Amino acid sequence: MDRNLVTQKIIQAKVRNKMTWSAIAESIGQSKEWTTAAMLGQMTLTARQAAVTQELFGLSDEETLWLQIVPYKGSLPTPVPTDPLIYRWYEIVSVYGSTIKELIHEEFGDGIMSAIDFKMDIQRQADPAGDRVNVVLSGKFLPYKTY
Amino acid sequence: MDRNLVTQKIIQAKVRNKMTWSAIAESIGQSKEWTTAAMLGQMTLTARQAAVTQELFGLSDEETLWLQIVPYKGSLPTPVPTDPLIYRWYEIVSVYGSTIKELIHEEFGDGIMSAIDFKMDIQRQADPAGDRVNVVLSGKFLPYKTY
Amino acid sequence: MDRNLVTQKIIQAKVRNKMTWSAIAESIGQSKEWTTAAMLGQMTLTARQAAVTQELFGLSDEETLWLQIVPYKGSLPTPVPTDPLIYRWYEIVSVYGSTIKELIHEEFGDGIMSAIDFKMDIQRQADPAGDRVNVVLSGKFLPYKTY
Amino acid sequence: MDRNLVTQKIIQAKVRNKMTWSAIAESIGQSKEWTTAAMLGQMTLTARQAAVTQELFGLSDEETLWLQIVPYKGSLPTPVPTDPLIYRWYEIVSVYGSTIKELIHEEFGDGIMSAIDFKMDIQRQADPAGDRVNVVLSGKFLPYKTY
Amino acid sequence: MDRNLVTQKIIQAKVRNKMTWSAIAESIGQSKEWTTAAMLGQMTLTARQAAVTQELFGLSDEETLWLQIVPYKGSLPTPVPTDPLIYRWYEIVSVYGSTIKELIHEEFGDGIMSAIDFKMDIQRQADPAGDRVNVVLSGKFLPYKTY
Amino acid sequence: MDRNLVTQKIIQAKVRNKMTWSAIAESIGQSKEWTTAAMLGQMTLTARQAAVTQELFGLSDEETLWLQIVPYKGSLPTPVPTDPLIYRWYEIVSVYGSTIKELIHEEFGDGIMSAIDFKMDIQRQADPAGDRVNVVLSGKFLPYKTY
Amino acid sequence: MDRNLVTQKIIQAKVRNKMTWSAIAESIGQSKEWTTAAMLGQMTLTARQAAVTQELFGLSDEETLWLQIVPYKGSLPTPVPTDPLIYRWYEIVSVYGSTIKELIHEEFGDGIMSAIDFKMDIQRQADPAGDRVNVVLSGKFLPYKTY
Amino acid sequence: MDRNLVTQKIIQAKVRNKMTWSAIAESIGQSKEWTTAAMLGQMTLTARQAAVTQELFGLSDEETLWLQIVPYKGSLPTPVPTDPLIYRWYEIVSVYGSTIKELIHEEFGDGIMSAIDFKMDIQRQADPAGDRVNVVLSGKFLPYKTY
Amino acid sequence: MDRNLVTQKIIQAKVRNKMTWSAIAESIGQSKEWTTAAMLGQMTLTARQAAVTQELFGLSDEETLWLQIVPYKGSLPTPVPTDPLIYRWYEIVSVYGSTIKELIHEEFGDGIMSAIDFKMDIQRQADPAGDRVNVVLSGKFLPYKTY
Amino acid sequence: MDRNLVTQKIIQAKVRNKMTWSAIAESIGQSKEWTTAAMLGQMTLTARQAAVTQELFGLSDEETLWLQIVPYKGSLPTPVPTDPLIYRWYEIVSVYGSTIKELIHEEFGDGIMSAIDFKMDIQRQADPAGDRVNVVLSGKFLPYKTY
Repeated sequence: MDRNLVTQKIIQAKVRNKMTWSAIAESIGQSKEWTTAAMLGQMTLTARQAAVTQELFGLSDEETLWLQIVPYKGSLPTPVPTDPLIYRWYEIVSVYGSTIKELIHEEFGDGIMSAIDFKMDIQRQADPAGDRVNVVLSGKFLPYKTY
Repeated sequence: MDRNLVTQKIIQAKVRNKMTWSAIAESIGQSKEWTTAAMLGQMTLTARQAAVTQELFGLSDEETLWLQIVPYKGSLPTPVPTDPLIYRWYEIVSVYGSTIKELIHEEFGDGIMSAIDFKMDIQRQADPAGDRVNVVLSGKFLPYKTY
Repeated sequence: MDRNLVTQKIIQAKVRNKMTWSAIAESIGQSKEWTTAAMLGQMTLTARQAAVTQELFGLSDEETLWLQIVPYKGSLPTPVPTDPLIYRWYEIVSVYGSTIKELIHEEFGDGIMSAIDFKMDIQRQADPAGDRVNVVLSGKFLPYKTY
Repeated sequence: MDRNLVTQKIIQAKVRNKMTWSAIAESIGQSKEWTTAAMLGQMTLTARQAAVTQELFGLSDEETLWLQIVPYKGSLPTPVPTDPLIYRWYEIVSVYGSTIKELIHEEFGDGIMSAIDFKMDIQRQADPAGDRVNVVLSGKFLPYKTY
Repeated sequence: MDRNLVTQKIIQAKVRNKMTWSAIAESIGQSKEWTTAAMLGQMTLTARQAAVTQELFGLSDEETLWLQIVPYKGSLPTPVPTDPLIYRWYEIVSVYGSTIKELIHEEFGDGIMSAIDFKMDIQRQADPAGDRVNVVLSGKFLPYKTY
Repeated sequence: MDRNLVTQKIIQAKVRNKMTWSAIAESIGQSKEWTTAAMLGQMTLTARQAAVTQELFGLSDEETLWLQIVPYKGSLPTPVPTDPLIYRWYEIVSVYGSTIKELIHEEFGDGIMSAIDFKMDIQRQADPAGDRVNVVLSGKFLPYKTY
Repeated sequence: MDRNLVTQKIIQAKVRNKMTWSAIAESIGQSKEWTTAAMLGQMTLTARQAAVTQELFGLSDEETLWLQIVPYKGSLPTPVPTDPLIYRWYEIVSVYGSTIKELIHEEFGDGIMSAIDFKMDIQRQADPAGDRVNVVLSGKFLPYKTY
Repeated sequence: MDRNLVTQKIIQAKVRNKMTWSAIAESIGQSKEWTTAAMLGQMTLTARQAAVTQELFGLSDEETLWLQIVPYKGSLPTPVPTDPLIYRWYEIVSVYGSTIKELIHEEFGDGIMSAIDFKMDIQRQADPAGDRVNVVLSGKFLPYKTY
Repeated sequence: MDRNLVTQKIIQAKVRNKMTWSAIAESIGQSKEWTTAAMLGQMTLTARQAAVTQELFGLSDEETLWLQIVPYKGSLPTPVPTDPLIYRWYEIVSVYGSTIKELIHEEFGDGIMSAIDFKMDIQRQADPAGDRVNVVLSGKFLPYKTY
Repeated sequence: MDRNLVTQKIIQAKVRNKMTWSAIAESIGQSKEWTTAAMLGQMTLTARQAAVTQELFGLSDEETLWLQIVPYKGSLPTPVPTDPLIYRWYEIVSVYGSTIKELIHEEFGDGIMSAIDFKMDIQRQADPAGDRVNVVLSGKFLPYKTY
């Protein structure tokens, strides 16, 4: 799949030019969360967003077209992640998954929290006992319907 | 492992008596998130918390002791969850995992967001386009150190 | 999980009493597709639907309560199904999955076909070359959004 | 396997030339569903269909021969798909698989719905609550026989 | 699943009463191959066949009903079989699978050999260098169709 | 492993030159089944057979040596095959594996049907209800011995 | 599978009565290697051997019949063994497997070392640097044949 | 890992020059078993052994250095081997693993047979019923100790 | 396997009687590390140690015999552990495994650190920044030998 | 990921120039344990450490930048390691994992031993019975908190 090659080229240019995701997001005009996911090959860009990206990373016209094609999503190489930071999130799903399920059902009934109509916000929270990562996940509740 | 049997007994009593996790949490005196995880066999209770739980669910003395033993954690039966609600969280890790990693590293440097010094808050957010599930995850940042 | 036991009891009563899913669905007052999924432990019943089910299968009051609890979903014992009929559906996802993805994206852009806001209709279509199974799947399109 | 390389070349040419599967299907003279599956390396083309494809994508004579060789089928890189759109189909098999099995057996007896003598039609259905994807799957019923 | 229990009961009765599959098949009035598969829980019996089976193995009326319900098929406990005899068949698929595919496609074009419209015959062939197992597999060829 | 490269070269030459396995087998002087397996990298050729193969496919001297080296066998990329035709054979092992085991043991006692002292014959059988694939597998019975 | 229950009963009786495999083998009249495998559910006993076993372990008549039925073989609960002693053997296959393959092919040509026409002898070899386990494996060479 | 490339170069040179492992072992001055394992990338060579190897296979100085670096061991591409010869050894571990465990413990007590302080000897044993492969495995017994 | 049942009985008695591993170890007369492993079913006890254990936990004579039988080892239910504490150790092997390998080889040459001739000591180390777990692992180095 | 390429270049330069990890660590000014992990792609270097590394291994400026980017961690190619030295560590987790868990919880209560705020020291311990590898692991204890 060629989107992968464009993703690699973007990551390499970012390292070489010492860019930050926040600055890139500002250029694109979206949140840093959505923009990073898009740059890492998980989201589809509009023509305008792709043009900005082309400029930022020196992409060819064909590479820029690929940014506008819906990608085959999934950014991890193994079902159980090996990277410690990402594993901690997998562990949260493992340890708290049944809790999350119970509490959402208690509040909303049968259905799911959408991972599509979804947004995420990651912030640093200063704390004298050591700063914290605060992540807000917001997903639309979608109820199962009878028919 | 016997904690599992206590967990099953709690879940069955909750269904039979039509209790809610929120009410149980109020009795225990902790958040509904921590309390549900504890009732589902993922957390260790103090003697006082265990005594309240015993009362609530009609547990035997031996069962009450098990609540105070650190459990073998992990609440899901398969590495990739099959339940649609829990799978959506696994999908978030799969699609956004590399994004989360990049943004935490950009803000904090090398390290992880703790899943131990961690808390979670799940709320309903009213929305005319359909109510949303809002989840706030807060974990201490732990840096890798050189030595 | 106790819903499983209720499911087994329902299946056994259905065999013993030579009932059909269509007749059960008529009693419940929903489509045969939704009803069968519910009886097989994949859907949550309302109090009224549960009461009809209790009557039909001679369930206890406690078993009837379990029907109204959101179940841990997923009805297959292995990631790749071994039953030939169900495997053919897995094969359709394997062989045509990328085709389905391409054509939905071509028509709708980036997003998914919901498996929650979803319904299914299974019909026999007479055909001189051998009757056919016709299945209509209808799912709401959910677009990814930028933020 | 070389068919993969031809598939990649076709996908890349399609992106570069901003073609649609519907237009390609019209040139080939088959449905958009069959044509997309064929272009993605899952179906075998006749000499005439291959010649049209050669023209459309600027393939070499040897690449065109490969289109007429029966491919090793299966279009997904993992047993449980990671792409959200394709996963939803896997989830349908997981949640509704036993339901589909029960209802087909109730109507037809023991046997399967063929995934070979099979066709598929994907349509947009306008809906004020959000447009829907409608998919019709039609497969011949094949009974198990005694001998 | 209760068919499993019936299968176990049949196997145990067969051992206890020192019956042979061939004799059982003669009673049922089908080939020894189909009959053994049916007794091992892979096939669905007619009312008449089930009645003979009830007689032979002393089954209850409810157990006899289960024989007439289409079972969840698949008779092996692991994806790669551990039993040496059954593994040899898996090895044949592994070593000769691509050969079988090539030769069927060379003779018939794209399609499959049905495992549903299928029969099997197992015979001893005397041979001075050691007797041989001869197995004849016969499956209808099902062509992929364009649409 | 270099035998793979020779196998790929043979397959590509066969496509380019529109050869058939039957014609190749006639040149090699063995059955089409053994010859195809050998060309697909599963069997070891004699010097004479390798020389014919060299001629047929325009192989180099070094490539021809590789044909005479015992290969690392196994022709499928995944434990559970994804290709529909090959999967049907895996399904036969899954559904009928215990049947095959029972019937061979009933006739021969404890032991296996050899997959080494083994041959296979694949034929088309004309049938008004649709032609059939007939496959005869013949393997020496090897008894377990006590010692 | 009931043979498992007989195996468990034998193991428990052996512990309770402080028997040794060597003494059991002497009673059965076979090597300690074959006898242990048979007692652990991997081999089929003759009527005479089963009668001795019945005596030794106080089995019922029905349990004794099960010893004479060919078992579903494979004595380990996981594909990669977790027990350190058994894992060392798996490691030998992993580290030396390609060596064993090369040397057998160099001596015998293409084929296998039989695991059916096979015997094993385990002996203690005194050694001043620490006693050694000496295991002799002897398997008939079975050549692949052309046809 | 570069040792793999050296291994491939050695294997290719061996085929091209029609060398045997026995002759190579004689040049190296070690057993054919150890030498083959070393050439296949599983053992570490001394400077002298590496120099002989360099000469034999025409390796560069850098490649010769790699022979003296401890390799990442494990010579098989899959947990369950697909090659029939190597699989038979895996089957021996599966069928006889518990037997080997029992008999070593009976003779030596708790501990393992070392796969490190280990040697192996593979010989042809002439036999009128078909020659046999005889393999002697010798490993030091290592007892678990209390502390 | 019956040792598991004895292990469960020990764990349950320990909870019921509020015993500690340290106190149990003192009674047994071994380190708390070895003793805990033994009580959890991973080590073999002498007659004397078993007698003490019998007394401590009120075991039957037959259960006490099982403590003296070498167990099938491996104390975790899944290849990748789900419990957060145990997972951290798996992560250490994943992240630092290649480092450990390199440094042991640099110091000792080719070979392994024994997990059999092995001991472990776990201590609390007071630290103003938060107390630390200090674990000392000591294993004999076992060199690979040429032969 | 490009850090892998830098890691490979470092390993190759180390072999070619016969460097030791200890000497490299001295140049970097950190322990040999941390330094080796960093060189093997598991840790992030400061600008100064990266500059020394660049000098030592002749890296390009871009490669040196990659050393300062947080890597995707995990240094092993398979969930269960195949290399005998690394496997022994996996075995320690398997056999002693539950012991480690019990003893840390007994001393500290519920929580984990950090693998992030973690250090490791590997030393040779002379021993007349054969030298030993001594490894000290030190990780901060992190308690679960209620909220």
